[in-house]
Amino acid sequence: MRAYERLEKRFERLGNLYGALSLLHWDTQTMMPRGGAGARGEQLAALSVVCHELLTDPEVEKLLDEAEREGGLNEWQAANLREMRRSWVHAGALDAELISEFSRARSACEMVWREARPANDFAAVRPGLERVLELVREAGRAKAEKLGIPPYDALLDEYEPGGSSEKIDRLFDDFAAFLPDFLEEVLARQEREPEIPPLGGPFDESSQRQIALKMMETLGFDFDHGRLDTSLHAFCMGMPQDVRVTTRYDENDPMKSLLTVLHETGHALYEQGLPRRWRLQPVGQSCSTSLHESQSLLVEKQAGHSPEFFRFAAPVMREIFGSSGAAWEPENLYRRCTRVERSLIRIDADEVTYPAHVILRYRLEKAMVEGGLEVKDLPGAWNEGMRELIGVVPPDDRDGCLQDIHWYEGLFAYFPTYTLGAMSAAQLFDAARREEPEIMSGIERGDFAPLLDWLRKNVHEKGALRSPDELISEATGRPLDSEVFKRHLKARYLSG
Amino acid sequence: MRAYERLEKRFERLGNLYGALSLLHWDTQTMMPRGGAGARGEQLAALSVVCHELLTDPEVEKLLDEAEREGGLNEWQAANLREMRRSWVHAGALDAELISEFSRARSACEMVWREARPANDFAAVRPGLERVLELVREAGRAKAEKLGIPPYDALLDEYEPGGSSEKIDRLFDDFAAFLPDFLEEVLARQEREPEIPPLGGPFDESSQRQIALKMMETLGFDFDHGRLDTSLHAFCMGMPQDVRVTTRYDENDPMKSLLTVLHETGHALYEQGLPRRWRLQPVGQSCSTSLHESQSLLVEKQAGHSPEFFRFAAPVMREIFGSSGAAWEPENLYRRCTRVERSLIRIDADEVTYPAHVILRYRLEKAMVEGGLEVKDLPGAWNEGMRELIGVVPPDDRDGCLQDIHWYEGLFAYFPTYTLGAMSAAQLFDAARREEPEIMSGIERGDFAPLLDWLRKNVHEKGALRSPDELISEATGRPLDSEVFKRHLKARYLSG
Repeated sequence: MRAYERLEKRFERLGNLYGALSLLHWDTQTMMPRGGAGARGEQLAALSVVCHELLTDPEVEKLLDEAEREGGLNEWQAANLREMRRSWVHAGALDAELISEFSRARSACEMVWREARPANDFAAVRPGLERVLELVREAGRAKAEKLGIPPYDALLDEYEPGGSSEKIDRLFDDFAAFLPDFLEEVLARQEREPEIPPLGGPFDESSQRQIALKMMETLGFDFDHGRLDTSLHAFCMGMPQDVRVTTRYDENDPMKSLLTVLHETGHALYEQGLPRRWRLQPVGQSCSTSLHESQSLLVEKQAGHSPEFFRFAAPVMREIFGSSGAAWEPENLYRRCTRVERSLIRIDADEVTYPAHVILRYRLEKAMVEGGLEVKDLPGAWNEGMRELIGVVPPDDRDGCLQDIHWYEGLFAYFPTYTLGAMSAAQLFDAARREEPEIMSGIERGDFAPLLDWLRKNVHEKGALRSPDELISEATGRPLDSEVFKRHLKARYLSG
Repeated sequence: MRAYERLEKRFERLGNLYGALSLLHWDTQTMMPRGGAGARGEQLAALSVVCHELLTDPEVEKLLDEAEREGGLNEWQAANLREMRRSWVHAGALDAELISEFSRARSACEMVWREARPANDFAAVRPGLERVLELVREAGRAKAEKLGIPPYDALLDEYEPGGSSEKIDRLFDDFAAFLPDFLEEVLARQEREPEIPPLGGPFDESSQRQIALKMMETLGFDFDHGRLDTSLHAFCMGMPQDVRVTTRYDENDPMKSLLTVLHETGHALYEQGLPRRWRLQPVGQSCSTSLHESQSLLVEKQAGHSPEFFRFAAPVMREIFGSSGAAWEPENLYRRCTRVERSLIRIDADEVTYPAHVILRYRLEKAMVEGGLEVKDLPGAWNEGMRELIGVVPPDDRDGCLQDIHWYEGLFAYFPTYTLGAMSAAQLFDAARREEPEIMSGIERGDFAPLLDWLRKNVHEKGALRSPDELISEATGRPLDSEVFKRHLKARYLSG
């Protein structure tokens, strides 16, 4: 057997074990009884170690070198080999001691954070975060050495192959310059509009679930290869041939679960559309984290926040809830879901201000990784950034730098993917609409096939064959920039 | 680190991976969408291979030998070491080629059986079963060589440590001699009784589930460490600290789900009561398959088919179903659930005739493993055995030798554990009642604590510290025999 084929065998095995790991994670969030948490943590750790050993076995490096020398691979195999090496670099860059130290420090810090956030006690979690940052810097240096790029970019590469802070700076600086005046204008315009009448309610969970299932079906979700459940935090998890979406239901606000389900179904359609032939191999996975986010935001924000979508959704919701009145007119649902405000909390933010929340975090975490910002100065830097970017200052750290779990559980260089995803979504949706004029009229009729067909062909079926940059360029005719996204915001929030 | 401690580390890892495997199995039966089956099969296979490699690694044999030489172990450690060796022997006795050949043959045979049973087509599955039997014989010989006992006993040892067909023959022959006249008498007596009025119905699933949950809670099931779901075939799966029970619901017969839940909760209480300190080690698992079955049958048949239980359960069920009338009197529920008949199907059989179904299968499979019976002669031998043991002959193979999946999926030497379990249940329950006079009056009040306390102390908390024989002797003052079971049947079905 050739070296490449032996690698495929090993990654097939790994792919199956990753599938098992995913199921354990899914169950933890959806089904597991409370008292099972301790044992589950140990099962996850044991299985992760097995995967890590399989991937960092010295045999793998030899096979990678040999397969690269052998050559003779077709386009998919070559991309697969490239992705194999990338997984191997990220898994092998950190030595066993750093991994276990990092894992301990993250768990400890996250546990303190769970208490510190509601208690608004940044001082309590500061030592934990300092330790985490110290290890993140160490990991960044180790990966930087392997990849020959700066530490922040080396951390970013795990989520965004080939991504660079230079490119991100350009996109984000441009948007940060655009936002203040634009936001001012949107808010002024919004103030002149009539009030939106209340929806009524409460709206029982089983009706909300019925709507969610109907929407998923309409979008093209395949229930033979997936399901919908409930969890505290919504997510989508794709094991090959089995893609699981979760949401939660707020009896007072049925729009939340609707939009959450659109978002997670966007992720799910990507997973269900990945190339079957390569489902256990690295090249059969999603292209990058930002591309994954682009698929959820494309469905939720680009398609799902359009007036056309609400013309389809309004009668469906009215019928299932037995509701009526002005609040349930498509125009009013649209206006309700596209309200903009200077908010403190990222996860509640609208489409216009969300990027500013991300830009803040990106700038801070980059400075922390590079050594230009220390943990003790984080709250001050946070508040200063909020004032500058969004024009509000948090009254306390609870609604400031303590609000997101990411850093406290050791996740750095992940935040920018949210906004890269939003920009990619705008650019992809724009290209799709230009190529397929049926898309918007389809959405209005509840027919998502024209959109899904375009996404399947231009994004989903490509897996990780291309880099994110190449994929966007091929699909839209130009590299990713912030122009189409800004144009989209102007069209939605300032015209019509 | 001493060899014993290194073994504990390895088995801890294995225990965690077994927990992950269990979750994959549970999910397959309860949650998995249909189209996920193929990928799940591959995940299960990949994880099983990892476990098998960890257990059969040459290092393990060296460590076992060394730990046995080292000595210096306390009682639990020594028992753990004994169980480690047993797992290792059973895992390592078959070479990789035989395992994969066996796995292929079983899957192929089972798939044909799924069509052959409804089609009443034994000829179709005959070649598949012949191949499976050939490999079972080979496995029996391989294990026999390692253990120095006959092949059937060597296969049995995986489920019943130290079990032997000589002991089983004695118990089963005795019961087979007792049954014909006894059954005649029970049926004659039953015929003289008045008819049982119908329950009414249908009984909706959600009320049945409410009753099931109430019963589980009453029995002492800990919902912080477990849950109840629905599946086509009921089962109980214990991952450490997380024990999952399933049932199914028949809208026309609410007694089925009630009794199924009692049965599975008996298994679950055993799992929840196993010694926490040893939860990932072999000695922390159940003592044997028959002991596991004894716990389910003790709850379902010994306690749950008693007049006292129905005096507790009748008002609970009446209230939840909103039912009333003579059928819902405790006495009539008791009579309904203790009907006896000469049935063709094992899984529908009553407490009196069930052992005969098992004895038939035990005798046939033993003869098949030893070479005294060939697959081609199975249907004839089956019908002959049914006539002799139960007094009825199946009209076709569908309700004859095609009815159970066990052999067709390669499971031999498992059947006797059902009836060893029934006999153990009778003997344990009898001892418990003699030691704790409060047990029956507790059950009548819906207080299972006196029974559960006794089981915790005498069975659950011992894990696999003792052999099944030792455990029964210590708990009941005598080795397992069929006397107490026969006495129980006489008391329940011929007196009062």
